[in-house]
Amino acid sequence: MTVDCVFCKIARKEAMASIVYEDEQVMAFLSHRPVNEGHTLVIPKKHYQNIYEIPEAEAGYLFKIAKRLAHAIRNAENAEGIRIVQNNGEAAGQVIFHLHAHIIPMTTFRGGLYNRSHERSIMELEEDAQKIRKHLSTSQH
Amino acid sequence: MTVDCVFCKIARKEAMASIVYEDEQVMAFLSHRPVNEGHTLVIPKKHYQNIYEIPEAEAGYLFKIAKRLAHAIRNAENAEGIRIVQNNGEAAGQVIFHLHAHIIPMTTFRGGLYNRSHERSIMELEEDAQKIRKHLSTSQH
Repeated sequence: MTVDCVFCKIARKEAMASIVYEDEQVMAFLSHRPVNEGHTLVIPKKHYQNIYEIPEAEAGYLFKIAKRLAHAIRNAENAEGIRIVQNNGEAAGQVIFHLHAHIIPMTTFRGGLYNRSHERSIMELEEDAQKIRKHLSTSQH
Repeated sequence: MTVDCVFCKIARKEAMASIVYEDEQVMAFLSHRPVNEGHTLVIPKKHYQNIYEIPEAEAGYLFKIAKRLAHAIRNAENAEGIRIVQNNGEAAGQVIFHLHAHIIPMTTFRGGLYNRSHERSIMELEEDAQKIRKHLSTSQH
């Protein structure tokens, strides 16, 4: 199962992504189809399909890092709001079946969630990632 | 600030809610305007406006409990999916400025998020809460 999983490949550095954070347990990288610039995904490196499969302590840790990223993304993108979304199952909108949380910077004028996502080039993503990495090392959390 | 906060009042049992879980740090209760039946909110009892204000360890704990609730809500509601949403700031759709995460049971046929929320009576909410409490005590996590 994990052989063909694109997020496992990203975690193993076999597929490309604009990484904003990495440690032993989790990795965060930019969505290649962001709702807004700076739209980040945080995943456990180990393959769990969804929130039901991941052990409680690891879920807690994932969201602790999501909180840390929320600060950095808000500051990097001058976002007015941050939305954290974690979907489980097709009925909830899950598309990649490797557990992930979305951290999405929001502004009043950009409208609702998921109604204006668009492709972003590797170079644009890399610029976004750079901004977030910078704020991750300097921001309070 | 916390004097007039409705979620602080619920945490202090000064305002009514259909509580599904409670411990020293967090409380979970049903939204009185659910997107779907079983739509639960989990809050820290202590007043934090948003994800930026809560300490990392407490954020991790809150989502650990959210995960536990996700199992129970899925089982109680026979949900096909579970969506966890945590909004920070008006621009992200935050309405009550006491940090909370939504845990929303989803089914394929019920359509998108937030486009069919509706008022639910106290008695209906209490029935939903009872189902979730039952599954919380029996479900694996």
